[in-house]
This record gives sequence, structure tokens and C-alpha cells, in this order.
Amino acid sequence: MKKNVLVAQSGGPTSTINATLSGVIKAVMDSNELDTIYGARYGVQGVIADDLINISNCICDDCELEQLTCTPSSALGTCRMKLRSIDEDDHNYKKIYETFKKHDIQYFFYIGGNDSMDTVAKLSSYFKSINYPVTIIGIPKTIDNDLVETDHTPGFGSAAKYVATITQEILRDCAVYSQKAVTIVEIMGRDAGWLTAASMVGRLSDRPVPELIYLPEQSFDNERFIESIKEELAIKPNVVVAISEGIRYPDGSYVGARSDEVDQFGHTHLAGASNILRQLVRNEIGCKARSVELNILQRSAAHLTSRVDITESYHIGFDAVQMALKGQSACMAVFRRKDVDWYQVETDSVPVERVANQIKQVPQKFLTPNGVNDDLLRYIKPLTLGEVKTPYEGGFPKHFIFK
Amino acid sequence: MKKNVLVAQSGGPTSTINATLSGVIKAVMDSNELDTIYGARYGVQGVIADDLINISNCICDDCELEQLTCTPSSALGTCRMKLRSIDEDDHNYKKIYETFKKHDIQYFFYIGGNDSMDTVAKLSSYFKSINYPVTIIGIPKTIDNDLVETDHTPGFGSAAKYVATITQEILRDCAVYSQKAVTIVEIMGRDAGWLTAASMVGRLSDRPVPELIYLPEQSFDNERFIESIKEELAIKPNVVVAISEGIRYPDGSYVGARSDEVDQFGHTHLAGASNILRQLVRNEIGCKARSVELNILQRSAAHLTSRVDITESYHIGFDAVQMALKGQSACMAVFRRKDVDWYQVETDSVPVERVANQIKQVPQKFLTPNGVNDDLLRYIKPLTLGEVKTPYEGGFPKHFIFK
Repeated sequence: MKKNVLVAQSGGPTSTINATLSGVIKAVMDSNELDTIYGARYGVQGVIADDLINISNCICDDCELEQLTCTPSSALGTCRMKLRSIDEDDHNYKKIYETFKKHDIQYFFYIGGNDSMDTVAKLSSYFKSINYPVTIIGIPKTIDNDLVETDHTPGFGSAAKYVATITQEILRDCAVYSQKAVTIVEIMGRDAGWLTAASMVGRLSDRPVPELIYLPEQSFDNERFIESIKEELAIKPNVVVAISEGIRYPDGSYVGARSDEVDQFGHTHLAGASNILRQLVRNEIGCKARSVELNILQRSAAHLTSRVDITESYHIGFDAVQMALKGQSACMAVFRRKDVDWYQVETDSVPVERVANQIKQVPQKFLTPNGVNDDLLRYIKPLTLGEVKTPYEGGFPKHFIFK
Repeated sequence: MKKNVLVAQSGGPTSTINATLSGVIKAVMDSNELDTIYGARYGVQGVIADDLINISNCICDDCELEQLTCTPSSALGTCRMKLRSIDEDDHNYKKIYETFKKHDIQYFFYIGGNDSMDTVAKLSSYFKSINYPVTIIGIPKTIDNDLVETDHTPGFGSAAKYVATITQEILRDCAVYSQKAVTIVEIMGRDAGWLTAASMVGRLSDRPVPELIYLPEQSFDNERFIESIKEELAIKPNVVVAISEGIRYPDGSYVGARSDEVDQFGHTHLAGASNILRQLVRNEIGCKARSVELNILQRSAAHLTSRVDITESYHIGFDAVQMALKGQSACMAVFRRKDVDWYQVETDSVPVERVANQIKQVPQKFLTPNGVNDDLLRYIKPLTLGEVKTPYEGGFPKHFIFK
């Protein structure tokens, strides 16, 4: 029987999720034990629908692989689909079984976040229950850095570098006027403030940083917010505030909630916290106020990735294949930081059910009453280091697109 | 009498306005005829208030000059102040005269847009009327590319490169889902669509580009917009739309106008056209819709400048000083494109009153019923070419800040 491989991408895009895909592809191509590698279109949806690409036919050399590595956002497409439990509905499980059987899939790699790890866990126990010999491994990715069991997630370092860089540029932009103004920068990370914290990394090297920062881990209060801004405006004309899209009031409601927009997982679609606070500042203080949503740019800015992150993202994909070849399954690949002072990581694995559906928030030890401490910034900074020489063509970065 | 120089920056920031400042500084430092160079804080406001920095003391070597070149957003600060005519109020003119006299200013360079050229024109005729021997030269800058008499403006090429690159990344991000979705990207340029047009440059090299584009030069119609989106959605699930912040309805009102926000020049503060259209799409079509405002990032993204633009921005500053030394005054430095097929420019000058308060829109010859033609893209593309090796330190770009 041929040993074919299937890989798919799931959840929100990142700027390095294709580096992980490249790592998987490279490891398969280098292996003597493995045959064809297929990619499922639009995550597990493509597995259910038997919508596969023969990647072995699409990627012909290291040059194309390198181009894929530097292309942002799930090149195979993605989905936000949660499998229902098998007791509720086994329809999709049977479809997946048929796809696996039809294409001799013996290894399935699923690159995604905590919802995707739920899929890995459910499929692993399903195939075990029917005694079908398939190895299933989850590979983490998310700019939110909110997966448990891993030191950090692939994709976070580049988003953090983007946020830290853009924050520096926004600070320059805001410093140009002498009139009083408040700029509110809204950063992704629904329930975890890791990425918002990255806006403060410049503090470690005495660079200007936002005057105020608000994470989802600490409850938000309109009055205290306005008081803090007034205090800052008394000292200097330009105040920059970094907020997470997911900041909440003490009753648990999101500052930026739009109640009419809920996704398939029941997550409220968040947008507009910065807009709401901009209006608040204008009403309560009366000065110029503007909001900047970093929006999808922070997860797709492949022109500004961290070399550490893109290298690690590639390696965790490569290493996940090695784990599979060594007989591991139903697990997720993770990073272990070996040393706190001198950054070094190694890959390892953990049982996937430990990760599925869990959220890792910024722990209290990293928080202060007014934001984040330097220990958190020292944790983040090494992940943002190094630049990548993005391949340009005709003035802008060259991207790889599966035909 | 010492021949001192004063330079100031005005209007909205760009990512290369400091390259022009560097060019001016370098030319002064290289000259045997000129002594100290001062910088006014916050544009002409700093000249009025005698709030000057001695730049000769702040910039000590080419290394610092290089760092300034790669720093975004008016390092000296800026303003949006229009001088009243001297017949109305000569108070500020006298203040400026005093500052010039106090510091032996014989040359004044004002880097800015069309409103700033009004200042150059007014001050030139004032000093001529009182027979005070000062040379005043305007140097253009604006990401909007809306100044007349010059082939293009310094700062536009980098903003265009940013818009073209980010559009490619947004297109990647939008292509990942199989569900129907409309993404509306809002780009700066109040009354001129040059920068919005840059989102289409990829078309010249058969790259994916937004399906629809709307410029301020063509009146906007909600019904036609919704019809066009429906037509695109019938062909593919993901539709990306590029709009200028300044698109207007046939009656002249802005789609994104917020009537309560008007700046000192009486310009309505524009924001939110994409948000308004996002709601429209959701109400009329019912599919997923999101808006992405490129916001101030497009004018401060020094990490992603065009080498052509940053080089030209530097040279036009340098050349403006040479023009002054050759006896020109009351003029603005401009670019002339020498050849259409093989991009080459040279600097020249025009009387500043020809430029002041004028707006150069995208001419009809570049427009089609559904957007822009390839001639326009061929005009824009050379301005976006080449990358700059931004100096990084500790993971993000190093900026120069005047103490």
C-alpha cells in the first residue's frame, strides 16, 4: 500500500502558515518512506468533499517551495468548521474515511489553532475506533499565541514584529502635530493580549511606546480610561493607546461587540472597539481622536516577517513529519524554550486533547495594574528578531498560488 | 552677514518626507556658501513662534543622516496652518520676519503639499514687498500625488508601493475561504484617485487585483455598486473592492463624510466610506463583508518604501538647495519625466503660485467606465520599483528622533 500524505490548513491565516506547509512538503519530498503529498482545499471541508490538490505535481523545486514559504495566508485555503461529535452525526467522519481510503492517505497533518486541534482529536479517536491505520498530527499556528502546551505559536513572532514595527511608525506619525490628539490602535487577539503586548516591545530598548495599553485579561472601565488619557494629555500633546480587540467591561461584555455578527463557533465577531473609544474620547475630552485598526494586515503582512518565526514555522512542519514517521499520532507539535536568558527552542509533542479548545491567556505574573511588565516583553522579543529577504518581482513581493 | 538656512515640513506626513529633509541638510553641509541650518518645529508655526532646532548641531555624520532618511513622518513636526492674506492680518508675517532676522535666515525651504505652497507664495511676495533678501523655495511631498506641474510627488511612490503590496497580501488573505465574502479596502487621497489606482498595478504582471475600483474622479452610485458586486459574486466567492476615501455621490457629497469633523482648511474629515459600504453590502446582499482602512499606515510605512521614491525624495531636497544657490526663489522644485517608456526623471522648478491651492486629479484619459486603464498603471509602476534596506535594530526599524 502506498504511503500518501494529506495536509490541510485551518482557522485564521497567518503570514507564516505557508512556511509550515513548506516544511511538511519538504520533509515528505525528502523521505524515502512517503509517496504523494496531497493538500485539501479549505481545510477539513476539502477532506470531506474530496477536494484535493496533488502538491507533488504543483511544487517542482526548492525555488517554488521558497516562494510558498514567503506567501502569506493559507495557500490551500482554510475553514472555520468544527466537526460535530461522532455520536451526534457520523456523516462527515465517513466522508473523511472515504477520502483517506480513496487516496491511500496514511498521514494527515492539520495546521491550525485550538479549534483545529479539536478536529485532530476527534478524527484521531474516530480512526482508532474503526482500526484504520492513519497517523494524525496537529501543527500549531495562530497570531494570537493562545495555544496551551507550547512556548509560543508559529505565526505569532511575525505578527508581533509587525505590530511592534507599525506601532513605532504610528508613534512617529502621531508625534508630528503639536495639537492635542489621541490615537487608539486596535490589535487582534480575541481573549488573549499577547499580540497587543508586542506593541510595547520597544520599551526594552528605550524606544517610544504607547502611553497606555489595555489587554483582554484585565477588565476595562470607561471612566478610568478617560482619566488615564487626561493624565497623559496633561504631560504631552500626543497620546497613543494600544488596545486588544477583545477588551471587556467588568460584566464580561466586549467593548467592541457587534451582537449581530457571530461565527460558526458562536464567537462574537469583534470589530470597532477602537472606534467606540474614539467617540468616547471625543465626547468626554473633546480633542482630536482617531482609531487605527491593524485589521487583517497584521496576519497577512508577509513582507515583514520575523526570521526567527519563519524559520521555526518551517521547522515545526518539517519536524511534525519526522514525529509521524517515528510512530507518534494524535498529538500536536510544540515548541519548548530551553533557556530563558539565551533564546533557544526545540520541538516536541503533546497529546492533542490537552490543547484542543483551550485558550492560553497572558498570565497574571506578566501583568501590572497599568499594563505589562518587562518579563513579558523579554519573552516576546526573541520571537520577533531577524528579517527575511522577501523575494520581490516588479516592485512587490512575489507570491505562490496553487493553480 | 551669515548665510543661514531654515527648513520646515508641513501637511500630512509621508514615509519619505525625511529623505527630502536629509537631501536639504546634506546640500547645506556640502556647501561652502552656507552656514548653519535650522529646522522649524511644527512647520510655519515654529517659524512664527521662533521654535527652531539647530540641525547642524543635531546631525553629526552621514550615518545619522541615513537614519533620518529612513524615518517616517515629518521629523521636525508639521502643521496644517494656512497664513491669512497680508491685507487681512500681517501679524504672523511680522513674526516670521523677526525670526528670519534674528537667525540671519537667507534661505527658507518649505516641504509640503498644495496648501504649503500657498504659504511659500505668500511669504515670497511679502519679503519681496519689504525688500528683505530671502530665498524661499517649496519642495513637494504628498502621498496623494495631487500637485500640479510636477510629474509626480515625492512620497507617492512609496505609498503606492505600500498600497500595491498590501493589496496583494489582502487578496491572499481573502482567497482562503470558500464562503462568499466582500472586502472593501479604503485608500487615502481625498479628491484624487492616484493612490487608489496603485492597488491595480499588479494587473500589469498578471497578478490578482481587486475586482472593483472606485476613484473620486467618477461619481459613485450605491445601486450600481451593489449590482457590480452581485455580478462578481456570481463568478467567484471572494470579491475585493478598492475605494478611495474620497468617493462621492453625484450630488457631490462624500460617501464617507462625517459632517461634524472639519479641519482648519474647511476640509471635511473623511473616514468610514468603507464601513458605510460594508453595511450596505451586508444589508443588500447579506453575505460576509468587511472593511479595511489602510489609514495612517500607508503614509508612515517607512519599512516598505520604494527605492526610486526615496532616492528621488532625497535628490529633490538636495537639488532645491542648488536652485536656491543659483538664485531661484518663489518657486517649487518639480520632477519632469523625460521618457515615457524608459523611466527617467530630472528636477526642474516652476513659479510656486502655479501650484498653490491647485489639485491634480487623475485625468479622464486614464479612466475607463469600470476603473483605470493600463496607461495609468504604467505611469505609476516605475515609481514603486526597488526596495530599501531599512536599518533594523533589535527586531524593528531604527528611527531618528530630534532631541
